[in-house]
Amino acid sequence: MAAEVKSLNEECGVFGVWGDPHAAVLTHLGLHTLQHRGQEGAGIVGLTDHGLHRHNGFGLVSEVFADPESLRQLAGTAALGHVRYATAGGRILENIQPLLFRFSNESIALAHNGNLTNALSLRAKLEADGAIFQSTSDTEVLMHLIRRSHAAGFQAQLCEALNQVHGGFAFALLTEHALYAASDPNGFRPLVVGQLPSGGYVICSETAGLNAVGADFIQDVQPGQLVVVDELGLHVSQYTTDTQLAVCSMEYVYFARPDSEIHGVSVHQARVRMGERLAKEQPAAGDIVVGVPNSSLSAALGYARASGIPYEMGLIKSQYVARTFIQPTQALRERSVRMKLSPVRPVVAGKRVILVDDSLVRGTTAIQLVQLLKDAGAKAVHLRIASPPLRFPCFYGIDIQTTHELMAANHSIAEMRDLLGADSLGFLSTQGLEDSVGLQTTAPNGGLCVAYFTGEYPTALDDYEQTLEAELAKLQINIPEVSA
Amino acid sequence: MAAEVKSLNEECGVFGVWGDPHAAVLTHLGLHTLQHRGQEGAGIVGLTDHGLHRHNGFGLVSEVFADPESLRQLAGTAALGHVRYATAGGRILENIQPLLFRFSNESIALAHNGNLTNALSLRAKLEADGAIFQSTSDTEVLMHLIRRSHAAGFQAQLCEALNQVHGGFAFALLTEHALYAASDPNGFRPLVVGQLPSGGYVICSETAGLNAVGADFIQDVQPGQLVVVDELGLHVSQYTTDTQLAVCSMEYVYFARPDSEIHGVSVHQARVRMGERLAKEQPAAGDIVVGVPNSSLSAALGYARASGIPYEMGLIKSQYVARTFIQPTQALRERSVRMKLSPVRPVVAGKRVILVDDSLVRGTTAIQLVQLLKDAGAKAVHLRIASPPLRFPCFYGIDIQTTHELMAANHSIAEMRDLLGADSLGFLSTQGLEDSVGLQTTAPNGGLCVAYFTGEYPTALDDYEQTLEAELAKLQINIPEVSA
Amino acid sequence: MAAEVKSLNEECGVFGVWGDPHAAVLTHLGLHTLQHRGQEGAGIVGLTDHGLHRHNGFGLVSEVFADPESLRQLAGTAALGHVRYATAGGRILENIQPLLFRFSNESIALAHNGNLTNALSLRAKLEADGAIFQSTSDTEVLMHLIRRSHAAGFQAQLCEALNQVHGGFAFALLTEHALYAASDPNGFRPLVVGQLPSGGYVICSETAGLNAVGADFIQDVQPGQLVVVDELGLHVSQYTTDTQLAVCSMEYVYFARPDSEIHGVSVHQARVRMGERLAKEQPAAGDIVVGVPNSSLSAALGYARASGIPYEMGLIKSQYVARTFIQPTQALRERSVRMKLSPVRPVVAGKRVILVDDSLVRGTTAIQLVQLLKDAGAKAVHLRIASPPLRFPCFYGIDIQTTHELMAANHSIAEMRDLLGADSLGFLSTQGLEDSVGLQTTAPNGGLCVAYFTGEYPTALDDYEQTLEAELAKLQINIPEVSA
Amino acid sequence: MAAEVKSLNEECGVFGVWGDPHAAVLTHLGLHTLQHRGQEGAGIVGLTDHGLHRHNGFGLVSEVFADPESLRQLAGTAALGHVRYATAGGRILENIQPLLFRFSNESIALAHNGNLTNALSLRAKLEADGAIFQSTSDTEVLMHLIRRSHAAGFQAQLCEALNQVHGGFAFALLTEHALYAASDPNGFRPLVVGQLPSGGYVICSETAGLNAVGADFIQDVQPGQLVVVDELGLHVSQYTTDTQLAVCSMEYVYFARPDSEIHGVSVHQARVRMGERLAKEQPAAGDIVVGVPNSSLSAALGYARASGIPYEMGLIKSQYVARTFIQPTQALRERSVRMKLSPVRPVVAGKRVILVDDSLVRGTTAIQLVQLLKDAGAKAVHLRIASPPLRFPCFYGIDIQTTHELMAANHSIAEMRDLLGADSLGFLSTQGLEDSVGLQTTAPNGGLCVAYFTGEYPTALDDYEQTLEAELAKLQINIPEVSA
Repeated sequence: MAAEVKSLNEECGVFGVWGDPHAAVLTHLGLHTLQHRGQEGAGIVGLTDHGLHRHNGFGLVSEVFADPESLRQLAGTAALGHVRYATAGGRILENIQPLLFRFSNESIALAHNGNLTNALSLRAKLEADGAIFQSTSDTEVLMHLIRRSHAAGFQAQLCEALNQVHGGFAFALLTEHALYAASDPNGFRPLVVGQLPSGGYVICSETAGLNAVGADFIQDVQPGQLVVVDELGLHVSQYTTDTQLAVCSMEYVYFARPDSEIHGVSVHQARVRMGERLAKEQPAAGDIVVGVPNSSLSAALGYARASGIPYEMGLIKSQYVARTFIQPTQALRERSVRMKLSPVRPVVAGKRVILVDDSLVRGTTAIQLVQLLKDAGAKAVHLRIASPPLRFPCFYGIDIQTTHELMAANHSIAEMRDLLGADSLGFLSTQGLEDSVGLQTTAPNGGLCVAYFTGEYPTALDDYEQTLEAELAKLQINIPEVSA
Repeated sequence: MAAEVKSLNEECGVFGVWGDPHAAVLTHLGLHTLQHRGQEGAGIVGLTDHGLHRHNGFGLVSEVFADPESLRQLAGTAALGHVRYATAGGRILENIQPLLFRFSNESIALAHNGNLTNALSLRAKLEADGAIFQSTSDTEVLMHLIRRSHAAGFQAQLCEALNQVHGGFAFALLTEHALYAASDPNGFRPLVVGQLPSGGYVICSETAGLNAVGADFIQDVQPGQLVVVDELGLHVSQYTTDTQLAVCSMEYVYFARPDSEIHGVSVHQARVRMGERLAKEQPAAGDIVVGVPNSSLSAALGYARASGIPYEMGLIKSQYVARTFIQPTQALRERSVRMKLSPVRPVVAGKRVILVDDSLVRGTTAIQLVQLLKDAGAKAVHLRIASPPLRFPCFYGIDIQTTHELMAANHSIAEMRDLLGADSLGFLSTQGLEDSVGLQTTAPNGGLCVAYFTGEYPTALDDYEQTLEAELAKLQINIPEVSA
Repeated sequence: MAAEVKSLNEECGVFGVWGDPHAAVLTHLGLHTLQHRGQEGAGIVGLTDHGLHRHNGFGLVSEVFADPESLRQLAGTAALGHVRYATAGGRILENIQPLLFRFSNESIALAHNGNLTNALSLRAKLEADGAIFQSTSDTEVLMHLIRRSHAAGFQAQLCEALNQVHGGFAFALLTEHALYAASDPNGFRPLVVGQLPSGGYVICSETAGLNAVGADFIQDVQPGQLVVVDELGLHVSQYTTDTQLAVCSMEYVYFARPDSEIHGVSVHQARVRMGERLAKEQPAAGDIVVGVPNSSLSAALGYARASGIPYEMGLIKSQYVARTFIQPTQALRERSVRMKLSPVRPVVAGKRVILVDDSLVRGTTAIQLVQLLKDAGAKAVHLRIASPPLRFPCFYGIDIQTTHELMAANHSIAEMRDLLGADSLGFLSTQGLEDSVGLQTTAPNGGLCVAYFTGEYPTALDDYEQTLEAELAKLQINIPEVSA
Repeated sequence: MAAEVKSLNEECGVFGVWGDPHAAVLTHLGLHTLQHRGQEGAGIVGLTDHGLHRHNGFGLVSEVFADPESLRQLAGTAALGHVRYATAGGRILENIQPLLFRFSNESIALAHNGNLTNALSLRAKLEADGAIFQSTSDTEVLMHLIRRSHAAGFQAQLCEALNQVHGGFAFALLTEHALYAASDPNGFRPLVVGQLPSGGYVICSETAGLNAVGADFIQDVQPGQLVVVDELGLHVSQYTTDTQLAVCSMEYVYFARPDSEIHGVSVHQARVRMGERLAKEQPAAGDIVVGVPNSSLSAALGYARASGIPYEMGLIKSQYVARTFIQPTQALRERSVRMKLSPVRPVVAGKRVILVDDSLVRGTTAIQLVQLLKDAGAKAVHLRIASPPLRFPCFYGIDIQTTHELMAANHSIAEMRDLLGADSLGFLSTQGLEDSVGLQTTAPNGGLCVAYFTGEYPTALDDYEQTLEAELAKLQINIPEVSA
């Protein structure tokens, strides 16, 4: 929930409703709840009396839907919404989802969370065969595969298409006849189904979204599953049975809301356990435990409990997101960043602070936090990270596709400690992470994807094989450290 | 810091800089830090090469200054900014401060936090004498008094004017020659002075504002004090010596940021002590202690420590403020409110929850929170309020001018408990509050204003005497309970 | 130039530049000059150092490009712009041209003026074969045909595609390598080529656009011609030789600017000749000749000259386009319309006015003008229309696809005169129109398309055959009048 | 009506309605009609059930009232509106009229067209006495004088105030009880009264405004007159009888709409007579007469009639106002200007053109027009100006307060001819102007103010005496030419 201070981004959130007279309004509420999953843009497609209509734009849900009329015109009995995360490039309106495809005889909306590993080669092949893409996102590939399928009926065409795309994906589609949701064969990205008091159904990235609209949880969309909701109700089937659970572990560590549950595990409680395990693996001689608000408070609470050292509120997070213009001096630029987090001086002054953060990406925020606590009088700052060192790129939906900016991919623990100015530095082990989540499964790595920690990817990487090789070549001196 | 879920509002924040080349940029950062004190509108007046220029508007600082050009045009060596709280009426641009008065030979900017008790009668008298007001706010009265003073020089005229206005006020004025700040004779509203690394000075509602721009704390503006900053430096004098400290206790309870200090007392630590005292005064048989995020987390931590009952994160606050349109059904309206706070189900399910809130105004939020926790499976909810029952209006700057919406002014503790659906209800005592803050003073009530709890006002009420009498008449049956 | 008071609309204007360092700025100026051809939306695609970039939106050019930054980001050596006319339906951003197609290895921009008669059947066929369209406009068909062509090289693919589409069209395409322009085999819609002082080339709907940017006229794009501009210069070829000139006569009558020349004929002078001929064909006993500003002033001048009756300014057109909200009463609605044209009372009072208008579509404006002149004291109003009665739909780019709102398709001259309240009514003959334009050609109808007057269409109507039959069936009683 | 191509600006237009249920809507229509009198900003104050409410902003009426809600909230039985002309400085919202003064017990709206010659000294005196002004415009002085008057009743106070201000003014005021209008003792600025079919009254700068809303003309507001409309009807009185008619002659020459009448004289017909007289005073050997659209077409028609030389449309004015960004090169800057007016080449090529313009201010437009016609092939351009040379500043409401930019104040006729590149140059004489207008009056100069032509001012100049002396000192070498 602190996406704006991390250089780590999740790819999007989806929220769909079928069979409720307030579908668009509920979707609007749902997208607010999923706002932490993407702030670049948002959109909703509503199934109205006149077919599918869309409203979308750049910015937060509250900005895109600032005019109530924008929502009213989407009113009907079904809707599909999406929030998109901020990327450096590709900032064109055509990429703001849901994508809406208008055919002569029907319209189809498509929303996606994840990353397809074979999108580039599929797109090249499709274009060579005359296909015209309207966006630059990988999502659109699915629709072209559907339209070129010769299978009988939309659902069969969709299944054929789903079997052609690889990687991490949670797709949702809305037609005038049904709402569809599908998860990739590893279930990298979370996706759940719920039911409204009205009898209508909700499909959504996190259970917190269900709670927000008063829907009861029904099930997680399982690896390889296709969920269809239409006038006859809910239909669940497998478009493939060649599956193996590998949930993105960063969802538990950082992305997901603490009030969500993924595959039956409470995110908040998993984080408390990560903090408890971290206290055992990486004890520290401190007077108080301080978490980085808000995403690391659960882990800090766990660390405090397991260590017996008092939990304290040593850092305050501003609830108003400051618009930080380009500042004229370096000092002002730093001020501008520090405004988001500020120390409670009397709490930290003279204390040895154990600072708990959920993860360490570039280290830029951590450097500032350590300095800020010391400026406020902390006698020592022991930094503890409630997840393993991030050393490898992700190709399933997290925005870490190169490693040169990953601190742990380029430095030893001792180097990082010195660069960060901390008195000591400790990370949670991969085994510790897997145990803390504790999924009930026999899948490897406790049912988690931990590729960015270990370099072991659960699927073939298709178009990214060469990218990975190039990254690994650059990293070769650091590789041994991973096992150290 | 949870202004949007309370029906209790503070009247504004002020931030001024003198003698720094980045005055407007620093003021912009400062206003972000004070955003919790007012969200209706914001404005900055900059002292530029071409005199005083203003930019202001409705909305958050980030909205008003969405265009970087709006800030660039204010660049110079001094600036004065203001954030204004949301009121039902009087929503006209002319009321968005700082007010800027353009005279033939000079311009003066004026910003204010507080409420004048004799503004209406002063305005009527001034208008009868030909004065034309441009706003409907009480603030403007001060400028007319200054301009009609026959004292020699601006500072003498200002002092004469300050001695004519009554009530709670923290004024800041910017001319082309100096920056002025003054506090009322009781020091109801906080106001501090700091110094920048550049040697320039800052005047600001809270010390958190000083920290945000890297300024060192110099002093609180004391009751009856006038602070002037000009090219010769800082000048402090008393415009009156008939003073007695009576800091608004709600600043410690709820309004101020936890990382601020008022008259030497850390707001966070005062709240922790309120929680500790509350645990002793109002114990409860609970399994976990849960604070209402974010403003009540300090008190909850104190309650947990003193009681030995585990502190838990049972409620999550959304960091994205949802734009809540008028919803078509009651159920959706409630959803819309509940989105701001959501329960962590596995934490509260089956538990007896001690819910700690900082204050109780109308009770509308508390009713929903109790219900929400019970819906999430809580076995019992014991509500503990870390301040005394609010029973009387405030005329010094808090927006409680009538009592018919104050729950504690109209119901006994037992009635409230039942209305709220809580299993038990307890408030902190006034003495407990005074002890928890612990100001070093011999002034009555420990140097605090506690009038809204006790009905004993530290000053004459001028134009509001009749208002109060009318309110008290309505409340007569409840009055005995106050002393109970 | 009076598009806003007619219920007759032209389909768009195009303006492209190749080989000038200020391509985007010149295109912006050019689109302003073509604004009369479409007011619904506008867009420019610029060829920048980072490839093709687009900015587009709803509204006038001045509204779409209100932010100078919107133009700066398009800076480069080539650009393609478009203004789009207002339609009732299809108001989605995806339809605002130039369309921009982003392929893996290149981008292509496409702009169009006209209407394709076989677009629907081509689209249906393409979709059945897996094509996905991003807009609902007929323009996009061309790009799909290009991409599915197996010809060698882009130009050959484009020619193949141009030979598959039928109807009236002026296409312009911009790639990173060249600017293309093509006219349909009948040259229904105007399109010209010019050269800038810099040596760069301009492609544009009207010669007035060339003048606006200081370009010299080179040639009209002839029927069936393809014009290519690239780094080697200008290349002209025929993609088909099966051509016959049939310029849309309404361009001369009403659409085009008076300072433009089409196929060598000055629009203003053609209109003066239409007025002169009208005076001979339809004389009237009047005291003054008054034209409807601004589009009919040329014809009025001609009528005055040929008749010897004084030309007068009896009607004033407001230069500020009023935003006419929905007015609460019928009287106010009429006021709102009348504000655009107002009488000069002392000029018309007591006079027999010969009112010259360029064309008569629904008659709604004419009814009001006649009434308005009589209210201002005119003794008689003799209405003279400088073109023949509009009785048939157009399928080549003018927005008259049904006839039930065409006054002349449903009433005799005498009926119309009575409905309009005029003292007499006269139209120019089709022969008179052809002679007045006076194109140097042996093509039928003097090289003009006069189908909306005569019902004789110069091409097969493809998908519109049935539409026309249905219209004709409704019109059968009136048909005899056409030949009368 | 061509304000955007002249460097000459009128100060504003006013429009008020009393006693009609659609007062705000009618005022909105009326302001559109007066838009030519000011484009910087617009505002309307409506008398609603909740008192006076205002909506105002920068830009055209259509921009300020882009949101229909802005007008709906002003609905009631009376309204007062204003359009303001564009000035270089003073661009603050506080100056956009009507000014709205909110007193404890009432509100008053004030709108003004003109310029007060003693505003500065009155303001200085008022401020010395404690007055605070909210705007930087001279208009506000009147309200302070009213409020400080000790006369009995509002109307008496208003009369007292009107007798204290000097210069050129047309004031309109709206209270909850009446609508007031007053003209200065010379009647410099036009102001008329009309009556609506509903029985309500309209006060407005020009009769074209009455026509636009269907109101019948009642009377011009005469010099020194005060017109009051209240529930009892229309009341007309003189606040002073020391009057002498001196209507601003530039209203007839250029500012007013051709369809307006001022003191009984049709503006269009006066212009036709100016053209006729000009043809006699300044004949030219030309083939065609071309007027600069749109404001000079009437004079051109007159010139053509009197000379017998054909009237032609040689210049076209774009009806769409181009937003002209700062252009990167001088050539583009000129293009940008020329887009507003373009030649009809076949009309002017090879011809000796008599170009008729209504007035000559800086000469910048005329230089471009002469060049543009020659570029289009004109064999000669004889420039004829239908008013005398502008040589002196105006202090009564036209924006010519310095003379260094007035071409005729700094150059002889021969010099101007050469600078403009014209083959000959001729102006109308002052006597010719007075005769052409032909007001029925015995007042000097035929009841016109011709001070900017002759330097003879009809009133004392108060605060501007020194300004004039300084200007005259600079002009001394040119003064002899005036009489030449």
